Amino acid sequence: MTEIPKDHPRYESLLAREKVVAGVKMGITSVQGLIAQGRGESFDYLIGERSIESALHAERVAVAALLLANNPVISVNGNVAALSPEKVVSLADITGASIEVNLFHRTETRVHLIIEQLKASGASEVLGKNPDASLELSHARRLVESKGIYTADVVLVPLEDGDRCEKLVEMGKTVITIDLNPLSRTSRTATISIVDNLIRALENMARFAREMKHEKKEELVKLITTYDNKTVLFEAISEIQEHLKAHAAEMEY
Amino acid sequence: MTEIPKDHPRYESLLAREKVVAGVKMGITSVQGLIAQGRGESFDYLIGERSIESALHAERVAVAALLLANNPVISVNGNVAALSPEKVVSLADITGASIEVNLFHRTETRVHLIIEQLKASGASEVLGKNPDASLELSHARRLVESKGIYTADVVLVPLEDGDRCEKLVEMGKTVITIDLNPLSRTSRTATISIVDNLIRALENMARFAREMKHEKKEELVKLITTYDNKTVLFEAISEIQEHLKAHAAEMEY
Repeated sequence: MTEIPKDHPRYESLLAREKVVAGVKMGITSVQGLIAQGRGESFDYLIGERSIESALHAERVAVAALLLANNPVISVNGNVAALSPEKVVSLADITGASIEVNLFHRTETRVHLIIEQLKASGASEVLGKNPDASLELSHARRLVESKGIYTADVVLVPLEDGDRCEKLVEMGKTVITIDLNPLSRTSRTATISIVDNLIRALENMARFAREMKHEKKEELVKLITTYDNKTVLFEAISEIQEHLKAHAAEMEY
Repeated sequence: MTEIPKDHPRYESLLAREKVVAGVKMGITSVQGLIAQGRGESFDYLIGERSIESALHAERVAVAALLLANNPVISVNGNVAALSPEKVVSLADITGASIEVNLFHRTETRVHLIIEQLKASGASEVLGKNPDASLELSHARRLVESKGIYTADVVLVPLEDGDRCEKLVEMGKTVITIDLNPLSRTSRTATISIVDNLIRALENMARFAREMKHEKKEELVKLITTYDNKTVLFEAISEIQEHLKAHAAEMEY
């Protein structure tokens, strides 16, 4: 990886970029995954490269949903595996969620490499190698395991495409997404839309999960029943607008 | 390339994505170029994937600058070569500009492949293979030809990085950029900042150049002297604001 000085103002962002480039070189991330990373960078820049209040709230609610679930599953694709395998494993450990690899540009080699990457990061079991069930979708993302995503009641699908997100919601699942674009179909379709950078979101969620796993069940239920996803998306859009306004003001207009 | 149905609502955007992926496979575009493409996609989405009024104005002014220049040069990198080599060649032909290859992640193979790509698209001469001059920059983008970018009075640098843009402006050149992010250092530093998609911008500029090359010199000069780049950037930001507002309204808030 290219050396990035730690005091660079955009250190985290540049480091993430290098991780995804390394993911492509290792065969974990698809070439298309780099374009997705770039799209995310723009929106992260527009929300100020920090976890905004509404995102932190959505993250808490998402953790409540994972903790209350009967069969929570975290879905992992090539970008997630390149960016933060350890954080996925640690969130899964704390919440008792299963991990399942699910790829748009699926090849058996990529599935294998990602499973190895997650195991090297501490995962004991990773699903996705032997998909015995299928969602009603036309591409490879339909392939799932019956004991994993197929029967899950709560699914965390970071960096998801709109189609699959919609299908999982249709199946009656609580779908948590992490997507920096508050206008995307994914964000607009999910049950809980976290508009935050993947690494920051997983880090926050692990911290919240450690705190919240000792809370009373009714407190967690209350968090979920009072949650309004539209407000969260609206607030993310407002943040971007504020950011743009500040920039325009800087230009002395 | 992956087949994209022509009636897909985002056909142009998906086609551009496939072209950059193909560029990487051919060795023309760097892997980092894909991330840049993704960043552009987000901003293009936010301005509505069309050439906004202020961009069309900046494009006319840029064409005037190219037509009036003594030594106009169009700088080409791996993304530009992958996305629209023919449009670069045609704009160069109409305006009498030279073409010079200039790469951040420079290798002799990439320079060679890009020159071949431009020649296959109709270019008779392409500079950049034998850089005999140097800008005061630390990376490979410093390498330029003395009869090209080094002595150019007007340089079109589409998809440029902030550092080099700044340096060229410091050298007293008229610097025209094409960058979908109106907040980027490139956009804020350039003399004429075109906030538009590369392919649309080059197409518009070639059309304008055909019309404007028969105009009186004083008309072209007037276009340039009355131009205000800050207003253009401000209007691009306003367009994004309007777009976000419309989206937020759609969410019924």
